[in-house]
Amino acid sequence: MIETIRIETAGPGLYDFTGEARRFVSGAEDGDGLLTVFVRHTSCSLLIQENADPNVLVDLQAFFRRLVPHTDDPSMGWIRHNTEGPDDMPAHIKAALTQTSLGIPVQNGAMMLGTWQGLYLFEHRDRPHRREIVFHFRGD
Amino acid sequence: MIETIRIETAGPGLYDFTGEARRFVSGAEDGDGLLTVFVRHTSCSLLIQENADPNVLVDLQAFFRRLVPHTDDPSMGWIRHNTEGPDDMPAHIKAALTQTSLGIPVQNGAMMLGTWQGLYLFEHRDRPHRREIVFHFRGD
Amino acid sequence: MIETIRIETAGPGLYDFTGEARRFVSGAEDGDGLLTVFVRHTSCSLLIQENADPNVLVDLQAFFRRLVPHTDDPSMGWIRHNTEGPDDMPAHIKAALTQTSLGIPVQNGAMMLGTWQGLYLFEHRDRPHRREIVFHFRGD
Repeated sequence: MIETIRIETAGPGLYDFTGEARRFVSGAEDGDGLLTVFVRHTSCSLLIQENADPNVLVDLQAFFRRLVPHTDDPSMGWIRHNTEGPDDMPAHIKAALTQTSLGIPVQNGAMMLGTWQGLYLFEHRDRPHRREIVFHFRGD
Repeated sequence: MIETIRIETAGPGLYDFTGEARRFVSGAEDGDGLLTVFVRHTSCSLLIQENADPNVLVDLQAFFRRLVPHTDDPSMGWIRHNTEGPDDMPAHIKAALTQTSLGIPVQNGAMMLGTWQGLYLFEHRDRPHRREIVFHFRGD
Repeated sequence: MIETIRIETAGPGLYDFTGEARRFVSGAEDGDGLLTVFVRHTSCSLLIQENADPNVLVDLQAFFRRLVPHTDDPSMGWIRHNTEGPDDMPAHIKAALTQTSLGIPVQNGAMMLGTWQGLYLFEHRDRPHRREIVFHFRGD
């Protein structure tokens, strides 16, 4: 079972799509199986993170922004890939440091997430983008 | 086939659970298939790393501690999520930089790991925790 | 369906194996399913990244080299695992920061990659190595 969802992003940050994934696996005929989540881009990424305090998401984004500054920062003068703007190559690097795919076991039609786990699209580009995430489910 | 194991951690470090995974896949009726490993937390993570020299594990932990200091370090004054202690937000960041899920092909009832590969739970919190790891196996 | 491919690396860098993966899944009898890619080493890793501008790959490699310098750099004097050369422990750290396994949905015999996504082996060691990557496909 395969489905592609689209998320409209409005700048850098973490966008929760746990609800979309929950709906997708609940539609599966088989109760147990494996959900694979895959993002079809290289300047945004996937992350499973805490869904309780929104400051966790703020701090995560701030950490990556400090670790990989925009390329108009003097410390990033060595970057070659600058044609698509100062946020572009840092976006690729942040994507490399996080995930492009996730595998989540499903039991009785529900993802086996921990209590505090949510699924996030991590947008690394400054401008709005339409992002595609593929869900794949295979029942046992 | 799904099983949840528990690992009691006693502070930061890498905890080997290769043996538990080996036992799990050897119990599968099908010889070939895919093992998915999933950790149900956002302040610890998964890692496949060298199982030979224990100093590799010491150095890995030290690198992440240097890259993401505790929030009582002056360099981390910008962190907002501080309510759960100086090791909490760094734990979320270290988890984001490593893995929440792993997919490992299985052949003839054995994980296709390289000679030097072991499976580790990477604990990022200072105090003892009970951690849950889900194994999912689907035969071909 | 399982196959192991070998890639001969000639120093640090990103080696494209998208074509090998494409060939592998096209040989599958089932049109839809899940491709899992697994690398059997802890001093190289996997990455899905932009396949258009080669400078993206150059910049990625440079970023990781700056984040994790060789251990003969004074800033890395705290490293214990030094017996296999100044590039060895940094290789393990870079592998920990990227991926050991990837899951990619397959539809109609083709990986559901985005337009700009390619599959790369990320070699972190200085000397030539023969690297093994396992492909696993399970049809729906």
